[in-house]
Amino acid sequence: MIKKIATLLLLSLTFATSAFAAPTAETVQASVDSMWVMIAAFLVFFMHAGFAMVETGFTRAKNALNILMKNFLTVSIASVLYFLIGFGLMFGESAGGFMGIDSFFLSGREDIGFFLFQSVFAATCATIISGAVAERMKLKSYILLTIVMTGVIYPVVGHWVWGGGWISEMGFVDFAGSTVVHLTGAVGALITVLFLGARIGKYSKGNANVIPGHNIPLGALGVFILWFGWFGFNGGSSLAADPELVPHVITTTLFSASAAVLSSALYTLFRFKRVDPSLTLNGALGGLVGITAGCANVSLSGSLIIGLIAGVILVEAVTILDTKFKIDDPVGAIAVHGICGIWGTVAVGFFDVQSGLLYGGGASLLATQSLGVAAVIAWTTVTVGGFLFILTRVSGIRVSREEELSGLDFTEHGSNAYELKDTVLESNASPSPFGTDLVERLNSIGTGAISNTEESKTV
Amino acid sequence: MIKKIATLLLLSLTFATSAFAAPTAETVQASVDSMWVMIAAFLVFFMHAGFAMVETGFTRAKNALNILMKNFLTVSIASVLYFLIGFGLMFGESAGGFMGIDSFFLSGREDIGFFLFQSVFAATCATIISGAVAERMKLKSYILLTIVMTGVIYPVVGHWVWGGGWISEMGFVDFAGSTVVHLTGAVGALITVLFLGARIGKYSKGNANVIPGHNIPLGALGVFILWFGWFGFNGGSSLAADPELVPHVITTTLFSASAAVLSSALYTLFRFKRVDPSLTLNGALGGLVGITAGCANVSLSGSLIIGLIAGVILVEAVTILDTKFKIDDPVGAIAVHGICGIWGTVAVGFFDVQSGLLYGGGASLLATQSLGVAAVIAWTTVTVGGFLFILTRVSGIRVSREEELSGLDFTEHGSNAYELKDTVLESNASPSPFGTDLVERLNSIGTGAISNTEESKTV
Amino acid sequence: MIKKIATLLLLSLTFATSAFAAPTAETVQASVDSMWVMIAAFLVFFMHAGFAMVETGFTRAKNALNILMKNFLTVSIASVLYFLIGFGLMFGESAGGFMGIDSFFLSGREDIGFFLFQSVFAATCATIISGAVAERMKLKSYILLTIVMTGVIYPVVGHWVWGGGWISEMGFVDFAGSTVVHLTGAVGALITVLFLGARIGKYSKGNANVIPGHNIPLGALGVFILWFGWFGFNGGSSLAADPELVPHVITTTLFSASAAVLSSALYTLFRFKRVDPSLTLNGALGGLVGITAGCANVSLSGSLIIGLIAGVILVEAVTILDTKFKIDDPVGAIAVHGICGIWGTVAVGFFDVQSGLLYGGGASLLATQSLGVAAVIAWTTVTVGGFLFILTRVSGIRVSREEELSGLDFTEHGSNAYELKDTVLESNASPSPFGTDLVERLNSIGTGAISNTEESKTV
Repeated sequence: MIKKIATLLLLSLTFATSAFAAPTAETVQASVDSMWVMIAAFLVFFMHAGFAMVETGFTRAKNALNILMKNFLTVSIASVLYFLIGFGLMFGESAGGFMGIDSFFLSGREDIGFFLFQSVFAATCATIISGAVAERMKLKSYILLTIVMTGVIYPVVGHWVWGGGWISEMGFVDFAGSTVVHLTGAVGALITVLFLGARIGKYSKGNANVIPGHNIPLGALGVFILWFGWFGFNGGSSLAADPELVPHVITTTLFSASAAVLSSALYTLFRFKRVDPSLTLNGALGGLVGITAGCANVSLSGSLIIGLIAGVILVEAVTILDTKFKIDDPVGAIAVHGICGIWGTVAVGFFDVQSGLLYGGGASLLATQSLGVAAVIAWTTVTVGGFLFILTRVSGIRVSREEELSGLDFTEHGSNAYELKDTVLESNASPSPFGTDLVERLNSIGTGAISNTEESKTV
Repeated sequence: MIKKIATLLLLSLTFATSAFAAPTAETVQASVDSMWVMIAAFLVFFMHAGFAMVETGFTRAKNALNILMKNFLTVSIASVLYFLIGFGLMFGESAGGFMGIDSFFLSGREDIGFFLFQSVFAATCATIISGAVAERMKLKSYILLTIVMTGVIYPVVGHWVWGGGWISEMGFVDFAGSTVVHLTGAVGALITVLFLGARIGKYSKGNANVIPGHNIPLGALGVFILWFGWFGFNGGSSLAADPELVPHVITTTLFSASAAVLSSALYTLFRFKRVDPSLTLNGALGGLVGITAGCANVSLSGSLIIGLIAGVILVEAVTILDTKFKIDDPVGAIAVHGICGIWGTVAVGFFDVQSGLLYGGGASLLATQSLGVAAVIAWTTVTVGGFLFILTRVSGIRVSREEELSGLDFTEHGSNAYELKDTVLESNASPSPFGTDLVERLNSIGTGAISNTEESKTV
Repeated sequence: MIKKIATLLLLSLTFATSAFAAPTAETVQASVDSMWVMIAAFLVFFMHAGFAMVETGFTRAKNALNILMKNFLTVSIASVLYFLIGFGLMFGESAGGFMGIDSFFLSGREDIGFFLFQSVFAATCATIISGAVAERMKLKSYILLTIVMTGVIYPVVGHWVWGGGWISEMGFVDFAGSTVVHLTGAVGALITVLFLGARIGKYSKGNANVIPGHNIPLGALGVFILWFGWFGFNGGSSLAADPELVPHVITTTLFSASAAVLSSALYTLFRFKRVDPSLTLNGALGGLVGITAGCANVSLSGSLIIGLIAGVILVEAVTILDTKFKIDDPVGAIAVHGICGIWGTVAVGFFDVQSGLLYGGGASLLATQSLGVAAVIAWTTVTVGGFLFILTRVSGIRVSREEELSGLDFTEHGSNAYELKDTVLESNASPSPFGTDLVERLNSIGTGAISNTEESKTV
């Protein structure tokens, strides 16, 4: 038998030998756990492709490159900053339960796999904002906000809940981050949108106009990618390859998302007489956010109910935020990550199979969950609000009216996301952007060139 | 050494301790097997993104949202129904080899990882139909069919072959489902297409017209995603992290798909004087379906031959179904999953390294494989046919001519998949779909609004 | 406890029992290592979807199908040929350190998992060329080149470095293939581009004109897919589930890519006054190529510096190759894989934590790295150059001017990637491509039909 396990095994055994002497059950379990966390981290990383496609698809073609750049820069900034500062604030030695104060640069730490998994989580929190502020926020202002979010604001919340901080001491349950990741990101998004204001043309004569996304199939692909990645987001939060816990977590995740798709589809059919694609796609995401806190703590039936409710909440939340509060969130991020994030966290107070209200556990857990939600909302509101208050004293965070109408792709990046014409077959093939010509072309912004470009963009 | 395995390991060991006392080789093997099945399930889930992109890309822009909704609803319905009914019918205690009769709601079962893997399989079977019936089937009728397929028709087939039922007793080999999943789905698709009829304009004056897909790059991405996911579909069907079996299964899967790409490309070059992209992309899928039954039982060379033949069969099957039988299958699903599914199942009778005809095993296995194929075709034909016969007595399953010409996105969902214009820069920014305005807009269908919309859609 | 591990475990234990008697720590470690390499191979396979999307998005719509076909055919040819010839040349018994001379058809080998992983690597090397030669190379010539690359040229390089050949004996470090895979592919691309020449309209009156890609969001998705897949590319190169090495490799990979995104974005902001989306996306890829050689050997800080430098090098390399050397590489493949591949390989000489120049290891490793790079450049230049020299004597490798202007999708494949019109609503619904009509339509190329078609393509 042994001889049938060929070179690969020999290679790996040799390798293992140098590292471990002979493998024992303990060392092999360490291997399995480590591989599981790595694979989960890959999936969480891939969620950024999902976010990018959702945000691009649900907004206008003229801002597509800008949104893509924001997504790539967010994950990059988060990776680096979380290494320099964030991880230490979140998982360093606790200073009174408020924040960590060592482990910066991973100094003195050897749990690099754990760091990696947490690092891609940090990027997720920040990227939630990019969708809500799409089509009008200056790239530079967005970058500054991302630095503060991933470097400080999110890590402090993380410390409170996952780093041994004061909320965790109270027994707060947030297995994979309905509150830590999603609500924090969504509150940041809401505050920023309040500072920014709505896009030109969004609200007129008391109406909430639709500004349709330019490529819903791309957005739908993004939702599938996010759902796929969420299995790693929730499943990897076990931090170990537990053969009972992980399948349970994955199944509650699948069930909640599926139930939310069904309830949002049915509810829009009831409410608007048609199955609404955008709201149903966001329903899937609402169901995923909704189960994130309780995926390890609720039963399969509980996850179905949480998802069913999340789907309905999502539809109402998008509608109310848009039409009643006139909060212009192009992709529905605040409803998906914020309102469903609150629902998911509070739902644990009802559905936790050990101490939930519906399982005879009394209202104690429910109170703790609510308090945790309130604390995170307060912290994020104050910090993001304070930061933006200062930032807006120094410089505007919104592009000019002219730039917004023209599209951020041209004004911030000097290019277009789509080129359906073959420029070679035109007489005026454009000169290289790498020569000085580009600078001239870009400098022409603000002159008559814009209305010109706008036409070609709105073909 | 041990001190170098830091916090993560400590955390996981602590965790493992509470669950397992000390890990043993047996408990660690359980971890590995469970993680493997989970990861395979993620990949199978992700195949739905592939199906959605293939079906969207290969059909017209005016029906894209409708197809996407069908895909999202299919996976959601399947997850829930398979939990409520399907799993019990498939893997419950057998009633005479025909179907299972317990384990509904997973009651009395603790193999949740196994359930999860089977659940995403069930969705795959149903979603095969959505491509074949695209662009003309009513959403509600499709949903009803999906409920019957995932709740009853597929689970019964599954019981026969994988649940200890009568076909499995005969020695039928279908490792990952060429027959159970793909043929069942394809026969359902064929019968439904026969009830539905062809799309308007597909056949005229005796000609089989081409109705080109609107976005082949998206479809090609879908094929890559399906191929990627298929490694989980076939590899996970081992249900264990066997270090010899799994690499063999993955390699035969890669080889068959690769060989089918080459043979379909070459065969279209020979047949039509050009390498046909659509048929070559479908060739890849045909090669994947073709190896699904035998991926664990044939040799590497056998997999190459099975794939080479699958690629040619696919091209001929698409051509003949379209031009001779005038069966309008927009994405070629019947040829890919049905004809190549039959080929793959029968091929095991020839290429099985233990009892295949070409390996001196006689015709016995070949006969069994053929009988299994016939039984599944008969069962699916009768049940899907019976269901649709009744359903069509009650209400039509096809949208009206007006709706079909106008596109299902507008008539069923009140929106468009693409919006290349910037509506804000137009004078007539459309009102919110979340207010009562949407209802009015939707109610306008059937009036003069349609021809109007049709124009903007066919820019 | 044991009774809670249900059917799945029982099934898998049963399975395992038949294969292994009772599992031991050694057999379980073999399982883990094998699963890790399988999953990494899946991710590397999925990189082909990334390459396809990047190459399609960054070129013109009229050549999209042609590029997609090249990508599908490349991975298919590589899988088969690497089985027949390549693997033996690379990992067979060494003939004097130059190439392997047995193991063809995997005869005498049982390490099929190792073969699978190497097989998807081989395809990666070849597919690098497809982007650089896009929009003008004949499909048949590209196929012949792919056969030579994956069958002979790449495997010989692989033998030198990874198969126990002469370069590896010198102590050359290339953990996952900055040189073996990326530089080899890029040199092949450069030589082929020199034989091919630039696209029509690319250079005129001394200017390097921009020929914009038609779908940058699709290209950006491709970059995310490549980054995701790269975790398997680098992480799987450990060939074992080492719980210390793998997380380190994944983190250096994440860090280098992130740093390169930041540095290329900032550098283009400094250089061109705007964050350039195309160069920043290529910056991510440059950072990934740059860390591929040293991902296991450099520190986290080292990986950040390597990435920062890679991002700047990429921008300058694209600019200089395009404007100074007038080398027309539509997707920047030569800069990404070639220049950043050289940088990554040489960087190990500086940043290797054991024997790098900056760590007090002297210049010895740096010299070895440089020699290896020079050897691979020489070998690939001579072999690809020699092959193309002969091939171009026999037949042209470039499509005609008429075909290039018309687009390769129509002339090589008889169809379009996009169809935004609904052909059924037009009077002239096109006849089936599966009948003899297609042949007529295709034969019409070269007559007046082309200018006609060109119009519809450039809508």
